Amino acid sequence: MTLAFQSQPGVAAQPPAETTGFVFNHTMLRVKDITASLDFYTRVLGFQLLDQRDFPEAQFSLYFLALLPAGTAIPEGDDARRVWMAGIPGVLELTHNHGTEKQDGPVYHDGNSDPRGFGHICVSVPDIKAACKRFDDLQVPYQKRLEDGRMKHLAFIKDPDGYWVEIISNTPVA
Amino acid sequence: MTLAFQSQPGVAAQPPAETTGFVFNHTMLRVKDITASLDFYTRVLGFQLLDQRDFPEAQFSLYFLALLPAGTAIPEGDDARRVWMAGIPGVLELTHNHGTEKQDGPVYHDGNSDPRGFGHICVSVPDIKAACKRFDDLQVPYQKRLEDGRMKHLAFIKDPDGYWVEIISNTPVA
Repeated sequence: MTLAFQSQPGVAAQPPAETTGFVFNHTMLRVKDITASLDFYTRVLGFQLLDQRDFPEAQFSLYFLALLPAGTAIPEGDDARRVWMAGIPGVLELTHNHGTEKQDGPVYHDGNSDPRGFGHICVSVPDIKAACKRFDDLQVPYQKRLEDGRMKHLAFIKDPDGYWVEIISNTPVA
Repeated sequence: MTLAFQSQPGVAAQPPAETTGFVFNHTMLRVKDITASLDFYTRVLGFQLLDQRDFPEAQFSLYFLALLPAGTAIPEGDDARRVWMAGIPGVLELTHNHGTEKQDGPVYHDGNSDPRGFGHICVSVPDIKAACKRFDDLQVPYQKRLEDGRMKHLAFIKDPDGYWVEIISNTPVA
C-alpha cells in the first residue's frame, strides 16, 4: 500500500535493497551532570543503563540507555550485549565531558532558541494523564503541560539539561 | 543480572512499575529543505515515510519516518497507523518550517560547535564496509570516514542540513 503523502518529490518508491538490516539505533545528547541525567532517565522515565564507555585520556564517558519492553533479556557478556544493543532501535546515548558538572549554570543548548536545530526527543506512554500526574508528583519541570495551549493530547517535560522530552499517548485516546 | 556500571549514583535499581509501556518513540530535527531530507533519509538510508501533518496556518509541516524491518506491515487507516507509529521506537520526526528552503546557506545548527548540545543520530548496519562503499558511490558527504582517525569501526556521514549521522556495525566484527 502506498499512502498519498508518500508520492511526493524526494521520497524513494521503496527502501533500497542495500539498506536491509539498517536500524535507527540511537540519538546522542551531551549532558552536564551525568548523575542527574541518569536519575532522570532511569527513575523518572524508566530507561535502563545498558553500557558505559570511559575515555579517561580524552576526559569523557558515554552512557547508553534504552526503554525496554518488560521482561526483555539483556545478553550477558560485554561483546554479546554490545552487538545486541547496536541492533535495536530507541537507544539514547548521553555524553559526559568530565568536569562540566562543576560549572555554574547551564552548559548545553537545547536547540529550541537560536541557533535552532535539534528539537526534542519523545517518549510515548500508555496512559498520558497518569504519566503527567506522576511527573507532577515527582516535581518534573514542564515546557508545556497537558492542559496548556491548543494541543491537549501532548506535553513537554524538561530533562536536567533543559532538553525537551515530548510525552504522547501510544494507545487509542477515548 | 546487574552489570557493574549499573550500581552507580543516579541509576534506579529497576524501572519503576509506573513506566511500563513507555517507549522512546522519536527524535525531532528541523530541516531546511524537506525534499532534500526526504531523499536522503529514504533513498540513501532506507527510511520509510509513515506520516505527514501539515499546519498551514502556522506555516510548518511534520514528517515522520522509520527504518522498518523488512516485511513490516504498516497498518491501513490514519488512526490505526498513528497509534501503531506512536508505539514503536526509532521514529525520526523532521520539522519543515515553510520557506526555509528558499534561504541562502545553512539554516539550522548541527549542535557540534558552540553552542553545543545535541550531537548526532546513529544508524547501525549489517555490513559497514559495504554501506560506506555505497555512500561513496552516492557521493554522500562525510564528517569522518571509516578509515580516518583512531576509531576504524565507525563513520559519520552528514545529512543535507549537516546533522551528523553515525554509522556503526550491528553484527559481530570479524
